[in-house]
Amino acid sequence: MAVAEFIPSSSLNKRTSLYSSQLSYVSTQISHQRRLSVRSLPRTNYSSQICCSVTSKEAQAPTVVQADDPKKKNECYGVFCLTYDLKAEEETGSWKKMISVAVSGAAGMIANHLLFKIASGEVFGPDQPIALRLLGSERSLQALEGVAMELEDSLYPLLREVNIGTDPYEVFQDAEWALLIGAKPRGPGMERAGLLDINGQIYAAQGKALNAVASPNVKVIVVGNPCNTNALICLKNAPNIPAKNFHALTRLDENRAKCQLALKAGVFYDKVSNVTIWGNHSTTQVPDFLNAKINGLSVKEVIKDTKWLEEEFTEKVQKRGGVLIQKWGRSSAASTAVSIVDAIRSLVTPTPEGDWFSTGVYTNGNPYGIAEDIVFSMPCRSKGDGDYELVKEVIFDDYLRSRIKKSEDELLAEKRCVAHLTGEGIAVCDLPGDTMLPGEM
Amino acid sequence: MAVAEFIPSSSLNKRTSLYSSQLSYVSTQISHQRRLSVRSLPRTNYSSQICCSVTSKEAQAPTVVQADDPKKKNECYGVFCLTYDLKAEEETGSWKKMISVAVSGAAGMIANHLLFKIASGEVFGPDQPIALRLLGSERSLQALEGVAMELEDSLYPLLREVNIGTDPYEVFQDAEWALLIGAKPRGPGMERAGLLDINGQIYAAQGKALNAVASPNVKVIVVGNPCNTNALICLKNAPNIPAKNFHALTRLDENRAKCQLALKAGVFYDKVSNVTIWGNHSTTQVPDFLNAKINGLSVKEVIKDTKWLEEEFTEKVQKRGGVLIQKWGRSSAASTAVSIVDAIRSLVTPTPEGDWFSTGVYTNGNPYGIAEDIVFSMPCRSKGDGDYELVKEVIFDDYLRSRIKKSEDELLAEKRCVAHLTGEGIAVCDLPGDTMLPGEM
Repeated sequence: MAVAEFIPSSSLNKRTSLYSSQLSYVSTQISHQRRLSVRSLPRTNYSSQICCSVTSKEAQAPTVVQADDPKKKNECYGVFCLTYDLKAEEETGSWKKMISVAVSGAAGMIANHLLFKIASGEVFGPDQPIALRLLGSERSLQALEGVAMELEDSLYPLLREVNIGTDPYEVFQDAEWALLIGAKPRGPGMERAGLLDINGQIYAAQGKALNAVASPNVKVIVVGNPCNTNALICLKNAPNIPAKNFHALTRLDENRAKCQLALKAGVFYDKVSNVTIWGNHSTTQVPDFLNAKINGLSVKEVIKDTKWLEEEFTEKVQKRGGVLIQKWGRSSAASTAVSIVDAIRSLVTPTPEGDWFSTGVYTNGNPYGIAEDIVFSMPCRSKGDGDYELVKEVIFDDYLRSRIKKSEDELLAEKRCVAHLTGEGIAVCDLPGDTMLPGEM
Repeated sequence: MAVAEFIPSSSLNKRTSLYSSQLSYVSTQISHQRRLSVRSLPRTNYSSQICCSVTSKEAQAPTVVQADDPKKKNECYGVFCLTYDLKAEEETGSWKKMISVAVSGAAGMIANHLLFKIASGEVFGPDQPIALRLLGSERSLQALEGVAMELEDSLYPLLREVNIGTDPYEVFQDAEWALLIGAKPRGPGMERAGLLDINGQIYAAQGKALNAVASPNVKVIVVGNPCNTNALICLKNAPNIPAKNFHALTRLDENRAKCQLALKAGVFYDKVSNVTIWGNHSTTQVPDFLNAKINGLSVKEVIKDTKWLEEEFTEKVQKRGGVLIQKWGRSSAASTAVSIVDAIRSLVTPTPEGDWFSTGVYTNGNPYGIAEDIVFSMPCRSKGDGDYELVKEVIFDDYLRSRIKKSEDELLAEKRCVAHLTGEGIAVCDLPGDTMLPGEM
């Protein structure tokens, strides 16, 4: 790795084959050792010019201009273009090896909460240096610069790199985590099928980009709606990345379900465990009270009101977003960001003994008899290594089975509707009515 | 404290004298032991009705209706009205005694970032249970409920109580920290004198309320502008609280100054230390490069460009907010919230050896020859006990002296302008031109 000394990693990222995952891997390792000097870049074949000032006059994002391939540029921002010696801190054993976290929709409100949590160490731990790679649209590029400026001004010691850009093939380079929040909101009168198509196209493109340039074991969390099918489209377009690595976020639903069970039982929410959201992040989702526990007891032993459990509980969980918009005047960006943090932490810290969490994952090999080849929220446990296994010790009754079936049917219908985006032929759309959750776009 | 068992603390808060700080103190202690039962409240003289559901139908904030004094109500929110046994967790030694943190302007964007940081444990530590007491205006009450709902859905284990309200005499009860963010924005054509008057009135009222009902050693951080003089007004109206406990937030300016010095020197921001913001949080503020250090060396040894230090540096720090609004389209809520976190953490964790932080504090007894009886940003160190001492080892030159003098003159003029709010006679306003920082309201 001696080659990396005094050579900007950005120039090393300029690959003869952009799609070589081997090279991508090398680049990840090298970037930890980079020591960019703003003033005295070595004039080698790989030389680059980096602008790092942040005055209003020099308003454009600082750009790495690469002599021999002007198209492939790597953008860094302000103070994050500067010299640092992270290697020394890694060698003392006080810090882990830096990881790259890519975030799409990075100029939006959810990301505005999430990025500062990631940079603070709250998500990956106080010894984990972070590189943030922020993806936005052309329209949001100025706002992305604003976000980068606020991250600069926050002086987070763990935040070592911030890159911003509009091309997923650049922004996703070497990403070990991809948090895909960006999605087009549903226009007036748009059907779910229309939304599936416009956002499906975005997620197909981002899947291809991840496949080409991200770390080969990147973990992907899809937040943009309709998130289950977006995640399916994304993984189908990224055949070199394990399908198991793709998640659709149902954690906010799980958190809301825990809160509602706590309220009904009259206990604090830390006493509620083993809550699963089954299925699609839509109104067909199934918050599972059959397997959930309160103070270690079955929910049905604690909450005797079966009518409430079967009829009101799910509705309360699902209407939460709508009530919130009504009160707060905007969607629940802060608690969505918290639930993304929870979803990541559940994968990077060992699951507490006896408990589990739920996340939308690929169904192949599932032990529940759920149709294969869709992304379905199911109960999982993790050793804290970024991976997970499905929980086997769950029970079903006819009520739970029938509701899971309905969500499964919906996801199979959504899948037929995006066949053109998953490489499986011609799309046929026979979706049921509008199943968007209230308060979501 | 046996009396507290099974008696709602809310009913104990109903005092014969609302202004007795002794009683206030008792109530704080009792509230740790409270075990509210939603369904079977004891029907004593102190009995109360508490509504805890959060459906859209029951849209109002749950209200404690007190039989014998309907005016004095204590509002809790949703799941935070429920049973918990914090005492048991305190007794095992795993958690500290709960503290109450009051926040004004709680429905605004800065608070929307800050509250989740406080609830997560990032500010006061992972073993510090928190009660949040949120103050809003009548107009923002619905939004406050939305904030409380999102806090519920975040399932933070340390967050044990959330109260919302519009009356500072209720919301500030027993507060050990008061983070005063709420302020009226400057209307079109309004002079600084006008802003001083309308916001000064708010801070006079809140000072009186803190004096009456907060913990006698409450720490107060004023964020609402013009924050130095607002803090002065607040402390003058709270004679029972030590004047030393009041702070005006200049930490965002300090963070921005560190970032700009890092950029200019071409080093990462963690190498910059001993930065002071002197004076008013306005364009007369003085970012001090004479005492600041980079990699342990005097800034002037590292940055030889004196013209940049004397002319451009301060401007870059001060124009940051304006550039940010231009790019991001709104003011810097996220990094302001981060700087409030930094300001609190600087008081509750020991200052690193040899370094310091700056905060706007009461000038009486200062060793720098700055006029007494104003709130002025100065360098401080803390043992981590919530208190601080002014740093003696600072040097001055004519340039620094003259600039500090200008900010001092401005604050003395602001003080004359609010004499009617500090109990010092008739206001005389002879303020210089507009010294609001760009990007602030």
